[in-house]
Amino acid sequence: MTDTILDRRDLRFQLFEVLDTDTLLSRPRFQEHSRETIEAALDTAEKLAQDKFANHNALCDKEEPRFVDGKVVMRDEVKEAFEAYIEAGFLAARASFDEGGMQLPEVAAAACTGMFTCVNPGTTAYPFLIAAAGNVIRNFASETLKQQFLAPMMEGRFTGTMALTEPHAGSSLADIRTRAVPQDDGSYRIKGNKIFISGGENELGDNIVHLVLAKIPGGPEGVKGISLFVVPKYRLDEQGEPAERNDVILAGLIHKLGYRGTTSTALTFGDNDDCHGYLVGEAHQGLRYMFQMMNEARVGVGYGAALLGYRGYRLSLDYARDRTQGRSAETADFSAPMIPIIEHADVRRLLLTQKAYAEAALAMSFYGYRLVDEIQTGDETQANDAALLLDLLTPVLKTWPSEFGVKANDMAIQVFGGAGYTREYPVEQVWRDNRLNPIHEGTTGIHGLDLLGRKVWQAESRGLVLLAQRIMADVSATTDSRCQPFACALQDMLPKVQSVTEAVGKQLASEGATAALSNANAYLQLVGHVVAAWMWLRQANAAVALTSAEDEDFANGKLQAARYFFQWELPRVETDITRLQEGDRSSLDMQNRWF
Amino acid sequence: MTDTILDRRDLRFQLFEVLDTDTLLSRPRFQEHSRETIEAALDTAEKLAQDKFANHNALCDKEEPRFVDGKVVMRDEVKEAFEAYIEAGFLAARASFDEGGMQLPEVAAAACTGMFTCVNPGTTAYPFLIAAAGNVIRNFASETLKQQFLAPMMEGRFTGTMALTEPHAGSSLADIRTRAVPQDDGSYRIKGNKIFISGGENELGDNIVHLVLAKIPGGPEGVKGISLFVVPKYRLDEQGEPAERNDVILAGLIHKLGYRGTTSTALTFGDNDDCHGYLVGEAHQGLRYMFQMMNEARVGVGYGAALLGYRGYRLSLDYARDRTQGRSAETADFSAPMIPIIEHADVRRLLLTQKAYAEAALAMSFYGYRLVDEIQTGDETQANDAALLLDLLTPVLKTWPSEFGVKANDMAIQVFGGAGYTREYPVEQVWRDNRLNPIHEGTTGIHGLDLLGRKVWQAESRGLVLLAQRIMADVSATTDSRCQPFACALQDMLPKVQSVTEAVGKQLASEGATAALSNANAYLQLVGHVVAAWMWLRQANAAVALTSAEDEDFANGKLQAARYFFQWELPRVETDITRLQEGDRSSLDMQNRWF
Repeated sequence: MTDTILDRRDLRFQLFEVLDTDTLLSRPRFQEHSRETIEAALDTAEKLAQDKFANHNALCDKEEPRFVDGKVVMRDEVKEAFEAYIEAGFLAARASFDEGGMQLPEVAAAACTGMFTCVNPGTTAYPFLIAAAGNVIRNFASETLKQQFLAPMMEGRFTGTMALTEPHAGSSLADIRTRAVPQDDGSYRIKGNKIFISGGENELGDNIVHLVLAKIPGGPEGVKGISLFVVPKYRLDEQGEPAERNDVILAGLIHKLGYRGTTSTALTFGDNDDCHGYLVGEAHQGLRYMFQMMNEARVGVGYGAALLGYRGYRLSLDYARDRTQGRSAETADFSAPMIPIIEHADVRRLLLTQKAYAEAALAMSFYGYRLVDEIQTGDETQANDAALLLDLLTPVLKTWPSEFGVKANDMAIQVFGGAGYTREYPVEQVWRDNRLNPIHEGTTGIHGLDLLGRKVWQAESRGLVLLAQRIMADVSATTDSRCQPFACALQDMLPKVQSVTEAVGKQLASEGATAALSNANAYLQLVGHVVAAWMWLRQANAAVALTSAEDEDFANGKLQAARYFFQWELPRVETDITRLQEGDRSSLDMQNRWF
Repeated sequence: MTDTILDRRDLRFQLFEVLDTDTLLSRPRFQEHSRETIEAALDTAEKLAQDKFANHNALCDKEEPRFVDGKVVMRDEVKEAFEAYIEAGFLAARASFDEGGMQLPEVAAAACTGMFTCVNPGTTAYPFLIAAAGNVIRNFASETLKQQFLAPMMEGRFTGTMALTEPHAGSSLADIRTRAVPQDDGSYRIKGNKIFISGGENELGDNIVHLVLAKIPGGPEGVKGISLFVVPKYRLDEQGEPAERNDVILAGLIHKLGYRGTTSTALTFGDNDDCHGYLVGEAHQGLRYMFQMMNEARVGVGYGAALLGYRGYRLSLDYARDRTQGRSAETADFSAPMIPIIEHADVRRLLLTQKAYAEAALAMSFYGYRLVDEIQTGDETQANDAALLLDLLTPVLKTWPSEFGVKANDMAIQVFGGAGYTREYPVEQVWRDNRLNPIHEGTTGIHGLDLLGRKVWQAESRGLVLLAQRIMADVSATTDSRCQPFACALQDMLPKVQSVTEAVGKQLASEGATAALSNANAYLQLVGHVVAAWMWLRQANAAVALTSAEDEDFANGKLQAARYFFQWELPRVETDITRLQEGDRSSLDMQNRWF
């Protein structure tokens, strides 16, 4: 039986052989940790994921949360899993020992929590949302708000949400209409409608802490006038316990294509003009605060997509090894037994492509979390460089695993054939669940604009310079002849990316943003593929360095997936390069009335 | 409001301006028909599809057929739609006047029935299955069987299925185990299990006619020993009415990811050794007979995928014109109204890509049906050439629209954004429904093997020669400067396809089929993209020939979609060409234990 959660050998490879997590462990903050403590945390996570999360992933897809008598009803296993997760300490995996946390590096904490997303993204979303909302409160809210809300959140007594999107405005946060009117007691009265609020209603804790974006009347226009508020479902009494119902109403549950275990809600704030909210930090700084959560959430979305890409790959690998069908093209003897379908080259292509996508996606997610560790525990130069690089890479880390995770899952279905198309087998759910990831936390289109319209030019394009330097460092470190073709191909890409970036820069100056950014998606795809290829070079270099005989198959697999990516995937971006270079106007010139 | 079924202007373009359906109408068989009669049939089909089929597409997805007290229960609208479809004559759209048919050309009949698939593929599958099974009986069964079964099928009193797949063998028909033992009365006793039988149980008619593949003991091994049987759910009495229950048992309903309106069943034949079956034609010729149905079904699957690709495109186009969000990159004024999202270039890219996929897929499907007309009504040379070309193109006509139809639907979801991910909006169902098409009637992988392992070499590769000739005829006919770049790009592809084919031919001779066919999928994708590009050249040439002022926007849209395809899509197959030429071994060499 193939291990269908995260393969532990692969995790060890990603953390300690591709990434230098050991170096990290020598820093003061992590000195209590070692490979052994991390492996022990992974053991705990894997077992808990298997025992308490995998058991109801399909059940919650089938019986999604319902709204009954004013409450959201969901299967009991969700609460059991949620409580076990808190109990085992994974909500505080990154938090300091003095806060009761595990004080794990980000990259190791991500490896642990990834076990849960892999087998049940719907249930895992609840603690993830608490952690994300909790971080914003920790970083920006007053001590009072922290005591009132953060402490019970970290104990799992209160859950959290991020309430950004409004029905009429979608991705356009500048246009939100939710209003926050200051009161004499320092609180605000909130009024407005939010949609697609994950976890917006649930009975997992005693209270729900909504982080709500709203505008204070008289503030600046557009995104500069957005403020951030804590808006609880229940207001607190003097003991800090949930007491009076706040004026937040569940307007409806949204029925999603996948990710059905997580409630998706439409919420109405202040329908009776009595919705109390509490300002986080300063007025009009809401988007900046929220962006911290959003950026973290974006890396997390990409990582989640990578995990589901990985899950589908492993499930289809297991099936392909077990299921027999047909014979080799050379076998004329029909009495010969049928062979496992993995023996058919085209099935191996489908598996190899999934491996190439999923393990590159995983590697880039871990690289991103490693940058977060660098920001938090590196010296000043390391931290500044890591921050610039992470900022540049965030659109890629969010979208590449999302886009190619769904493509991988599509191939998992294809490996299962007719069975894959039925709900009696698990891969169709993975595919449906994963389809959310190219949409939430900014669609792929939005991230293309973010990368090419903003990130690339920040700090005089120092992020892009850093990226090229780091890629070149790995190119230069390539010594094994099996990896050199990969290094050469990657090296060839860098001046092309440079040249294309300059071409767009000129177009921005001469024709303006609408024209220059009209092929931003192609640029995002190009940079994404270059980063994925880089991840494969790094994995290939790490693989050839493995010397143990028992690693031989594993290393060969990594090399072959790298080869596949460099042969079949990377060259396809040549089209993007050519079209970007010439400033192709196909989409730009297309007129509404011509459709 | 955008027309979200098949656009009538586009249909007229496809039938009469891209294809020369007029020429067809001058042939004796179609002399009663004219553009006007075809447009009238399309009017009827469109109205019926809108009134009786569109109304329950989402409902049957939500409330899929259930098995209650020995019967399959489905929503009443299905039967109403089914009966209206028969009543309006669309089951017999292709049949001769003397059989009570409409005697329409295949291409026109397909245009009519496409209206139904577009809005409700689940319900439309029932009459389609009757038509397909009926054709096999008409062509190969005895007069007695025709009278007994075909006649009531064409009246809609009996429904039909094709029962090929068995649980243990899947695509490997050589390995089916269902047995047919001859009896003294000339009938057979059938025993075996079949799975994924669409429409295998339903209450739409009085009887169900299963066309079952089975082996007669003592016959040849493998596919050469397969025979075809009519196996009714109820055996007929002397008046030809359904009487005694035959020993066919519904073993279970399969719960599919999409296409939920069509029952998918597991059937057990002869569990009580009393399942009567009747041989169609001669013994051991079953696969040949079934292939006629399968080939027709394969073109039909591709067409269905094209229609759903088209449907998603039109739904998302309608949404993009209506939904406002954000402003242009140059607008700094947040008090300016938000703009329809179609004004954002990246949304136009998503729409233009869908258009490029869906309308090429539609054009190639119609081209395929036009070849069927040529086979049926052309002179001997025309018919022979058309048969060779259709045989070659069948894997492409089946898979290209299927693969790119699903990709188009994925983009339709993206245009809708968060709304697209919910079941409150229609595109997610289209995406789920369409995902079946790359699987049933032979997976994409199987068709790659069929094309490169068999079709390309048939009749000394005359099919490929014909394809090149026809493409070159359209290249040579290109005179407008706007289309010449397309013609040049397409012309450049032909020697490359030729060269790649020769390279594989040599590899077949020197290394055998397993190695030579290991990249068959890339070859299929290459030929598919060349055919799609050809369809865009043909559409572009037809578009520039339009002279009416009211066609200007329509023609510009066609030209822009052609430009998009030639700029962004066709060049990506260069990677496939290079890898095929060098005989890349990435998938071939990958070992099971390396995964």
